[in-house]
Amino acid sequence: MLEIEMKFRVAEFAAVQQALQSWQATAQPTIEEADHYFNAPDRDFARTDEAFRLRSIGVENRVTYKGPKQGGPTKTRTEIEIGVEPGMEAADRFCRMVQHLGYRPTAVVKKRRTIFEFERGGFELQACLDEVETLGRFVEIEIVAEPAQKERAQEALLAVVRDLGLPASEPRSYLEMVLARTT
Amino acid sequence: MLEIEMKFRVAEFAAVQQALQSWQATAQPTIEEADHYFNAPDRDFARTDEAFRLRSIGVENRVTYKGPKQGGPTKTRTEIEIGVEPGMEAADRFCRMVQHLGYRPTAVVKKRRTIFEFERGGFELQACLDEVETLGRFVEIEIVAEPAQKERAQEALLAVVRDLGLPASEPRSYLEMVLARTT
Repeated sequence: MLEIEMKFRVAEFAAVQQALQSWQATAQPTIEEADHYFNAPDRDFARTDEAFRLRSIGVENRVTYKGPKQGGPTKTRTEIEIGVEPGMEAADRFCRMVQHLGYRPTAVVKKRRTIFEFERGGFELQACLDEVETLGRFVEIEIVAEPAQKERAQEALLAVVRDLGLPASEPRSYLEMVLARTT
Repeated sequence: MLEIEMKFRVAEFAAVQQALQSWQATAQPTIEEADHYFNAPDRDFARTDEAFRLRSIGVENRVTYKGPKQGGPTKTRTEIEIGVEPGMEAADRFCRMVQHLGYRPTAVVKKRRTIFEFERGGFELQACLDEVETLGRFVEIEIVAEPAQKERAQEALLAVVRDLGLPASEPRSYLEMVLARTT
């Protein structure tokens, strides 16, 4: 599966929330996410455009690998995710394991995220309203699609962005923005 | 925690089973285990004496890192284990993820294992009676102990080995033995 997404910095969420409600988008309960990012022992993920992280959502833990972005106006990349044991002790154990394997912790990104789900052009979309620690507010629009549906999914996503009146997109990940502030 | 263990090749399990029963050891149901081993992109685990594997026990999956052996008459090493999503599809997804990270599958070790649990010298011990595909029958005696208890745990383990009348120990892992057969 491909994850196709675009991200936009906003001052306030009010206008986007209003549009989403008028589309009967379903809001999920707000969640607290902490992402622990790692860099590899054999290559620099900042250069290869990959990512490897542990995401904790409340007590839930999952590990994610993201491959290099494949180009186009939207962000398209391979994503593989797998759930691991829940709880803070298990999250800590996972971090120790990958450090034994040679991975180095690079940054922690913490955010409060509210996800809205809706349909457009036959696709299921998500809009994430994110308050990111040290960075501010962002809206991320995302479709997960079969590789064969890539172009139609990109069109649906761009139509939603137009309708929401979102400004120029932010191409950097939260990780890149956090690293840009600390280096 | 430290895992301290010794392994012995045996022709038959009968004598060991009899001794374990006379000690009121508790037998767990026999399980089928499949271990998928990986080698690292930045170093050769065969040279650094580390191991990284996914173990599937029925539908359960867990990932394990084992650090270099620390010497002494028994095998003592750091071991970090973490449960991951159950099922064959999740096991396959995990294997794909670590291959994206640069890990190479090296071998699969399959065995039927019956675990007996008993006490000796204040420690909880396990005796694993293993029928290993292509290798044959082995008895593995194991203690997990706090690092501060290392020497007392080693003594307890050696006393059990003596009482069971086990032959000279096999220092190689099942992985090393499987690789020795295939190369």
